[in-house]
Amino acid sequence: MDRISKVGCPLPVKIAGLGRYTPSQVIASSQLELKHGLEPGWFTNNLGVTQRCWVKEETPSFMGAAAAREAVSAAGLDLEDIDLIINASTTANFEKLVPDGGPLLQRQLGLADSGIPCFTLQNNFLSFLHALDVCAAFLTTGRYQHILVVTAEVFSFNLDFTNPRVFGLFGDGAAAAVVTLTPQGEASGIIDLCLETFGQGAAAVQSAIGHAMVRGKVSTPADMSMQMDVEYLNKNGSIYAYNLLKKMERNPTMQDIKWVIPPQMGTMFSDSVKELLPGREILQITDRFGFCGAASLPMALYEAVKGEQLRRGDRLLAVGVGAGISVGGMIMTY
Amino acid sequence: MDRISKVGCPLPVKIAGLGRYTPSQVIASSQLELKHGLEPGWFTNNLGVTQRCWVKEETPSFMGAAAAREAVSAAGLDLEDIDLIINASTTANFEKLVPDGGPLLQRQLGLADSGIPCFTLQNNFLSFLHALDVCAAFLTTGRYQHILVVTAEVFSFNLDFTNPRVFGLFGDGAAAAVVTLTPQGEASGIIDLCLETFGQGAAAVQSAIGHAMVRGKVSTPADMSMQMDVEYLNKNGSIYAYNLLKKMERNPTMQDIKWVIPPQMGTMFSDSVKELLPGREILQITDRFGFCGAASLPMALYEAVKGEQLRRGDRLLAVGVGAGISVGGMIMTY
Repeated sequence: MDRISKVGCPLPVKIAGLGRYTPSQVIASSQLELKHGLEPGWFTNNLGVTQRCWVKEETPSFMGAAAAREAVSAAGLDLEDIDLIINASTTANFEKLVPDGGPLLQRQLGLADSGIPCFTLQNNFLSFLHALDVCAAFLTTGRYQHILVVTAEVFSFNLDFTNPRVFGLFGDGAAAAVVTLTPQGEASGIIDLCLETFGQGAAAVQSAIGHAMVRGKVSTPADMSMQMDVEYLNKNGSIYAYNLLKKMERNPTMQDIKWVIPPQMGTMFSDSVKELLPGREILQITDRFGFCGAASLPMALYEAVKGEQLRRGDRLLAVGVGAGISVGGMIMTY
Repeated sequence: MDRISKVGCPLPVKIAGLGRYTPSQVIASSQLELKHGLEPGWFTNNLGVTQRCWVKEETPSFMGAAAAREAVSAAGLDLEDIDLIINASTTANFEKLVPDGGPLLQRQLGLADSGIPCFTLQNNFLSFLHALDVCAAFLTTGRYQHILVVTAEVFSFNLDFTNPRVFGLFGDGAAAAVVTLTPQGEASGIIDLCLETFGQGAAAVQSAIGHAMVRGKVSTPADMSMQMDVEYLNKNGSIYAYNLLKKMERNPTMQDIKWVIPPQMGTMFSDSVKELLPGREILQITDRFGFCGAASLPMALYEAVKGEQLRRGDRLLAVGVGAGISVGGMIMTY
């Protein structure tokens, strides 16, 4: 089935402001190697991760709110200008089981009596891309005008500490974006956005916990921890990503792409991306932040914009692979 | 702040098919009264709930898939015609912490290798209304054409069994809707849709569990259970709903409303709704199903359509109040 977007592109959508928050506690890979009896350099050599941030006390809503304030300010807006808040995170919606992370974020932002609608959108590590899809539609129809998308991930509380390929990979972090219609005369827009889910890989990245298990029972940290079948995910994620990019290749703008944001799962999936898109500049932040789930993409975007590498009018391709298994690709003119 | 929708209405959106699944295990209020030492009739008299369904073994994705199959069939479509699946539930996204309920649902539907994109949209008990908002935008821009919205709630696993006003209120249930553009010449559409969140009431309905707590610790059923400050929710939810409906009253179509689907929280909030909208037919299903969170609204809709009470061209108002605190109102021509 060919599910490439049929809608007229580019979608006139602009990332008007970006923000980021990373926990102050930096965990060097050398610390973890010492603690878990691994040889020096194991995490860098095997995963491409030299350090990551793990929260001490920060909650997803605290981190998300910090990133959001910066994004709103960067967009030249006030918080009260926001007319929709989308909490687009894997983990922020289990800060509590109820309510979802949207109202928690709104409260952290001092908007608790504003009435601004909020919801959580979760497609695991692809949440940010799906949120941009929703933003594009809402902005095009005029339903909302200044949408705040916040992605705040805290993985460190439920990692599988028996598997260094999992616990060494993940970091905590948050990023936020204010998304608006592109003003007349500007080039910003989403040129193509392709999203696919393959539920047959649903068990490749999962937590054991389920409603049946917790019914009246005590649950242990192991029940909560996120398990990852690295081999399955790597193999099938690569196939799905490859097929998706082959389909997107038909888009003529693929030729003009200057920057590529690959899935930030350390070195995983890098080969597929490099093979298909040789000679592009790669925006990789995994070495310093590990994999921060849905937050990795906007965190990398933030860094490239802040560092004045990525400039208005530049064309980029963002590729994501995640739990689900879901894959996504977006061609965007920043 | 006045956040009534600015977008041109009606939105040309049609609920093309509906489906429902309720667990086979029916729990009579008399059973619960006996078990918990309450006088006969307590739940009916105090909450308006005479019975509810609670799952034995059913999972949210199983229930959601059953409802979805019926909805797709009622719309005269095949499952493969669906181009987006939105899991719009409070509880279905914690069947597992990871992945979200979207891929689990897709797998249950036998679509696990389809690539059909899926995500979870959660705004607690308002999830279905927010999903319709997203559908309207996606369908209007042509991004997706046949969207399956599934709402599957299993509350019975984490109720607060110390508080009969909470555990007696909630039921388990699922409903699904296929949403499409309105074909030329038909009247169906969303005339107004107003959604508001007030995070200052975030603690009014909440689970105690949070990431800080489960970090490396054992959690008990009490940690998981959903606590409800009934008095706070009742008082403030009524104010928010009243204010929302007063704003919506300006819409001239309010006069033509034949059916009202009130928040299905038993007798809670009924007064506000009845006071503002005297003389309308009220679609209430709480007596037989309890409050099924986000599923209550489409479950009530299903029943009215199935029973040939609600017919094409009829105008209805759906009102929701839920955790967040979020409130919503939708005027729709079915």
